[in-house]
Amino acid sequence: MLTLDFHPSGRHFLQIPGPSPVPDRILRAMSLPTIDHRGPEFGALGLEVLGKIQKIFKTEQPVVIYPASGTGAWEAALVNTLSMGDKVLMFETGHFATLWDKMARRLGVEPEFLGLPGYDGWRAGVQADMIERRLREDIEHSIKAVCVVHNETSTGVTSDIAAVRGAMDAAGHPALLMVDTISGLACADYQHDAWGVDVTISGSQKGLMLPPGISFNALSAKALQASRTSQLPKSFWAWDEIVAANKTGYWPYTPNTNLLYGLNEALDMILGEGLDNVFLRHQRWGAGVRAAVDAWGLEVQCQDPAVHSPVLTGVVMPEGVDADAVRLLIYKRFDLSLGMGLGKAKGKMFRIGHLGDCNDLTLIAALGGCEAGMKLSGVELKGSGVLAALDYFATHPLRTAN
Amino acid sequence: MLTLDFHPSGRHFLQIPGPSPVPDRILRAMSLPTIDHRGPEFGALGLEVLGKIQKIFKTEQPVVIYPASGTGAWEAALVNTLSMGDKVLMFETGHFATLWDKMARRLGVEPEFLGLPGYDGWRAGVQADMIERRLREDIEHSIKAVCVVHNETSTGVTSDIAAVRGAMDAAGHPALLMVDTISGLACADYQHDAWGVDVTISGSQKGLMLPPGISFNALSAKALQASRTSQLPKSFWAWDEIVAANKTGYWPYTPNTNLLYGLNEALDMILGEGLDNVFLRHQRWGAGVRAAVDAWGLEVQCQDPAVHSPVLTGVVMPEGVDADAVRLLIYKRFDLSLGMGLGKAKGKMFRIGHLGDCNDLTLIAALGGCEAGMKLSGVELKGSGVLAALDYFATHPLRTAN
Amino acid sequence: MLTLDFHPSGRHFLQIPGPSPVPDRILRAMSLPTIDHRGPEFGALGLEVLGKIQKIFKTEQPVVIYPASGTGAWEAALVNTLSMGDKVLMFETGHFATLWDKMARRLGVEPEFLGLPGYDGWRAGVQADMIERRLREDIEHSIKAVCVVHNETSTGVTSDIAAVRGAMDAAGHPALLMVDTISGLACADYQHDAWGVDVTISGSQKGLMLPPGISFNALSAKALQASRTSQLPKSFWAWDEIVAANKTGYWPYTPNTNLLYGLNEALDMILGEGLDNVFLRHQRWGAGVRAAVDAWGLEVQCQDPAVHSPVLTGVVMPEGVDADAVRLLIYKRFDLSLGMGLGKAKGKMFRIGHLGDCNDLTLIAALGGCEAGMKLSGVELKGSGVLAALDYFATHPLRTAN
Amino acid sequence: MLTLDFHPSGRHFLQIPGPSPVPDRILRAMSLPTIDHRGPEFGALGLEVLGKIQKIFKTEQPVVIYPASGTGAWEAALVNTLSMGDKVLMFETGHFATLWDKMARRLGVEPEFLGLPGYDGWRAGVQADMIERRLREDIEHSIKAVCVVHNETSTGVTSDIAAVRGAMDAAGHPALLMVDTISGLACADYQHDAWGVDVTISGSQKGLMLPPGISFNALSAKALQASRTSQLPKSFWAWDEIVAANKTGYWPYTPNTNLLYGLNEALDMILGEGLDNVFLRHQRWGAGVRAAVDAWGLEVQCQDPAVHSPVLTGVVMPEGVDADAVRLLIYKRFDLSLGMGLGKAKGKMFRIGHLGDCNDLTLIAALGGCEAGMKLSGVELKGSGVLAALDYFATHPLRTAN
Repeated sequence: MLTLDFHPSGRHFLQIPGPSPVPDRILRAMSLPTIDHRGPEFGALGLEVLGKIQKIFKTEQPVVIYPASGTGAWEAALVNTLSMGDKVLMFETGHFATLWDKMARRLGVEPEFLGLPGYDGWRAGVQADMIERRLREDIEHSIKAVCVVHNETSTGVTSDIAAVRGAMDAAGHPALLMVDTISGLACADYQHDAWGVDVTISGSQKGLMLPPGISFNALSAKALQASRTSQLPKSFWAWDEIVAANKTGYWPYTPNTNLLYGLNEALDMILGEGLDNVFLRHQRWGAGVRAAVDAWGLEVQCQDPAVHSPVLTGVVMPEGVDADAVRLLIYKRFDLSLGMGLGKAKGKMFRIGHLGDCNDLTLIAALGGCEAGMKLSGVELKGSGVLAALDYFATHPLRTAN
Repeated sequence: MLTLDFHPSGRHFLQIPGPSPVPDRILRAMSLPTIDHRGPEFGALGLEVLGKIQKIFKTEQPVVIYPASGTGAWEAALVNTLSMGDKVLMFETGHFATLWDKMARRLGVEPEFLGLPGYDGWRAGVQADMIERRLREDIEHSIKAVCVVHNETSTGVTSDIAAVRGAMDAAGHPALLMVDTISGLACADYQHDAWGVDVTISGSQKGLMLPPGISFNALSAKALQASRTSQLPKSFWAWDEIVAANKTGYWPYTPNTNLLYGLNEALDMILGEGLDNVFLRHQRWGAGVRAAVDAWGLEVQCQDPAVHSPVLTGVVMPEGVDADAVRLLIYKRFDLSLGMGLGKAKGKMFRIGHLGDCNDLTLIAALGGCEAGMKLSGVELKGSGVLAALDYFATHPLRTAN
Repeated sequence: MLTLDFHPSGRHFLQIPGPSPVPDRILRAMSLPTIDHRGPEFGALGLEVLGKIQKIFKTEQPVVIYPASGTGAWEAALVNTLSMGDKVLMFETGHFATLWDKMARRLGVEPEFLGLPGYDGWRAGVQADMIERRLREDIEHSIKAVCVVHNETSTGVTSDIAAVRGAMDAAGHPALLMVDTISGLACADYQHDAWGVDVTISGSQKGLMLPPGISFNALSAKALQASRTSQLPKSFWAWDEIVAANKTGYWPYTPNTNLLYGLNEALDMILGEGLDNVFLRHQRWGAGVRAAVDAWGLEVQCQDPAVHSPVLTGVVMPEGVDADAVRLLIYKRFDLSLGMGLGKAKGKMFRIGHLGDCNDLTLIAALGGCEAGMKLSGVELKGSGVLAALDYFATHPLRTAN
Repeated sequence: MLTLDFHPSGRHFLQIPGPSPVPDRILRAMSLPTIDHRGPEFGALGLEVLGKIQKIFKTEQPVVIYPASGTGAWEAALVNTLSMGDKVLMFETGHFATLWDKMARRLGVEPEFLGLPGYDGWRAGVQADMIERRLREDIEHSIKAVCVVHNETSTGVTSDIAAVRGAMDAAGHPALLMVDTISGLACADYQHDAWGVDVTISGSQKGLMLPPGISFNALSAKALQASRTSQLPKSFWAWDEIVAANKTGYWPYTPNTNLLYGLNEALDMILGEGLDNVFLRHQRWGAGVRAAVDAWGLEVQCQDPAVHSPVLTGVVMPEGVDADAVRLLIYKRFDLSLGMGLGKAKGKMFRIGHLGDCNDLTLIAALGGCEAGMKLSGVELKGSGVLAALDYFATHPLRTAN
């Protein structure tokens, strides 16, 4: 067996914003023997998982589960609904928004990329008024879809999806609303039906606490309608056959059975705890981690308090400090993985994930590693973030949403 | 935890031609903690796996690993090399060949489907001379690719890929050669480089003994060349970024880490045993199972002794017997899953997989379940297949390739 | 990791009469993180396990669980109740009875060993009338305990414990009744309270389907009374402190936590299936295996049809055949472990276990390995045992107790 | 499956001084299928484990492995070497020394219990000069054994075993030297042969990082000699049959196979890292934790800097604070288990384990939980222990003993 751990003892602290630490309970579920995906047991599993996953998206409409990692679900959303040359409106919230833009171009779609100017655009959420303004200009409705990211994994900034929906309605524009909540789902509240989203894209390796390898498209009637006329070629990602086969709990081709075992277990854990409790838990962690960043005298990447992510926190390094060098030192000395700055944020910040199989002391450990590592790297800190977070957690016991 | 086993006691016998029974050693490897797919440990894992997988395909050219199940790898082969309206030549060896044909049409490619007439075509392998003849007619070289299945999972018939290559060379035709060996790889000999294959398609859940969720494209220089001019839209499946990122052991998007742990373990097991030993083992199992079918007085689906599959055996039911009813009885009474007849073979036959985590007695158990179940279903049997297979295994001890 | 499997592929068939094949569900439960055996969670686990285990012994009296393998529970039964020089009456049913006799001597107890003469004594169960006769002679009641084996693991012969109780009552003798049902518990019916047993001894690695490492003493009020005056030194095995600590779900010293996780899971599986269903299942397997032995024209070790073990079957080799040579060939060629002949039965017979994580086809596999291995060893067989067992299983579907 | 975790999310921090957190690698090894303990594979496993375990005890003499938890190994040491009424000299270092004294009395041995007066005796190690003095007085050599604890798990105080040996030699006394290093082995240096120990007692669930269930007696020629004349009854614990059977890698009765898989894996991990590196690692952790206690302005239980335990640290609560109430609050609020004060120390202190599957940040997390929990309980702290430990770890990188 390949020894994957370069460290002598103990468990690695995986505090990146996904893949998140996988609970042992899920790893154990994944180790059940693979079954026949055409046999009677599989259908029972399929129906169970498909029913529960709807509750996570807060939808009564079909949720398509792909045996592929998250990027595939983006592609699926585009190829099922659009045709070559179609215009879509995207909003530059961060690195993953830019990747989506790039993918759209590769697939022959023509994205228009809105956003706040420069790097500052990456420190705020989607500006719904900019979208409304742009849609109002689009009198012939040449824009076929609005694509936004709910929780920008690269920055720790969320966006107000209900506001985007409101903007589209206010503009009276018929474009589809597509939302990437790959890292938001099952951490931050998300309401596919109530917010009128047409395609929601998500993945397994974040709030669902699974290893990567499963991804999702939650659909709307309007999206399904669009899929009937869309001209982009599609087969593996095509909704029609999957939605039809799912009616009896099966898939048109081989699903990834063992990850579905894990998904079923994850859904039991999350629905058992209660979604509202899950959201409160992540919000509290986020607040504790931001208390640490404040105490250090550093800046949080997200500059708008209304849209701090409950999933991850971006920590901005002072001018002249190479965030990646700090991260590497922390990795080597403290057996702790942090997320790197991506794209425009490269080298400027690091990201602390507070999701997955965590608790208060896991985060205290992670903040301890950050604090010691920054000091060893010569970063000047105003005070102790570990103590601030510890104090926050101690004085803010976890409430339970009845 | 969902109880997936409808049976009161013991381990289910999964003798379908894939997903194959997964060795515990692989399930254990898959339960290692998920790591950062951007961290130093992951790069080491990636390089290790990418190096070993080449040995399985017998190639020194790039092998692309997708975090998606096998059907995706078919799509990848087509979208990376072809353009809308391109002609391809396919050969109808069985159900999976027809699915590939159907996929090509959905993607905008124009397949021409050769084959022997009727159901009999499903009882023999690819006829290389028919391909040669057709290619010779194609004077303007409008056919861009020849697509064949190496081991037809729906029938238990293999095809002579070297002969197909020979036919193409004899015709002096420049089409790409694409081969699906999803169920053949690591069971039957396969030589990507020596046979001059341009794209080989495979998956994880057969001879590699993994759960489904990983699939492969082995490439050639000519295939890579074609990918630079191909016009079908592609992003998730695009080879260019993956091949570039693989140079340092990484992927452009999130790979399915835990299945890669399993893949690495599988590769160690297979290369440790030695590919030639693995092939001998499967051939011997196939011979034992065919001895059973002969003793029962039934027909093997494959009618050409030269191309019996070492991976699975199709057992044809006598006229008037519903093979699926027999299978269901066997499933319920003996805790044994068999493969169903697919497409033209629906209800006419069942398939016994002899691959994955098996040994002689596993197959004796499976043949016992078949024999008792057929009797209970009123199928008349000439003699005992279990005893014939037992005798075959006893008198043909496993040899070791040097 | 040490590679423990000397075989190239597949799962070993462990058909010895214990340790029995452990269900994956139990192995998974055992892999939960070890907890503080003084913490609140442990007490909840302890109470749960202690409550359920009583149902298995059919007792409302205390069951002591030792963090030690089965032989220790024998020692515990003796040292808690007896004093140096005490006389006990034992009955030679087979090898494990002789080991118990040997242990008693080492501990300073004076066993008297009843039994039928010679090797034939090992082919029948306890003769209650012999016990009654002997106890009637013991007018001064110098015999302090009667010690018998419920299911002789070395022979596949059970004994009628209710009859032994009847014999003791008929003789009006106050001796304690101690019963070893290490391999009988949770396979064959056992009634600690109804049969008036004073100390029942059992272990984890047979019908409970756990790895070895846990053993049991089920007690009676009379046994507890005896423990207050017994003079043999005891500390680790002493009931008093354990019974006291168990009241709140704890142990006086460190229990083996992870095996208790496994025990809890096993109890859920067994009680979930229903004890009567479990017994029917084992009886049916025993009948099927004996049908095989009959078909081979060989003798079953147990010569009294009333007391055939539902747990294992001893297969007697013809004169001149070395049973151990046959076993070794079967092990090497067919990846199947069988039990050896022990003591007086050494080299004369082998034992097939039909317990633990098994089903009909597991046993067909095992019988197939036996049949082929005996043939290769030159044993003359009258007919096919595999086919006889297959026919038996096919024509005797598993009934469910209401 | 019983849900053992009372906490909503994340991994419990098990920082008691044993059972220690078990590495996943060991849990995985323990989940291998149970094999026949009389078969060829088992003998290979047995020899491998028996060979490696000698290196851990630093002995070339036999090490007996019991399928029983640690308390059993104490009993084994006494019953194998002593006779009813034999005098032994024990030293009261803490709670576990008193339990050993109590066990000796139950078994009919007559311990004399030396020690420093009162509770202060629990804050220092064995006083070798007191032992020497007492042995010099014992002119007729009626004292048969000196029994001391190497690492007192109840206090975090080690003792100088070489000094005890020196004292015995100086007194010219022939008593056996028996040492309990249940919690010291594989954390603190231990030299069975060089220190002239006759019986060393240890267990699996501390430095060996296994679940409880295995225990050890390392022997000397003199101990084996004593076992031939000792009169205490013994069978399960008797060395003679085990040592004889071990010669070929087997045990006279059923060993606990799956824990032996775990032991084998643990030995590979420890010997792979190198014993000296393992010791350095634990010393550094101890120093870091003591830096935290100093910063808090609290007392470490051990008052002699020469014998601070590298395995655990006792933290003394100020007068009037109920240590158990503090522990319970920490358990409930921070998902952290700490060791309780035992015996004379009950309610006065708690114990932090720094052993098993840990790293620096695990300890930072644990100290964070302690600090916040003490504050919430109203304990006045002089400063921040978390920061002191973090600073210690940051400025004292782990050295490697070449």
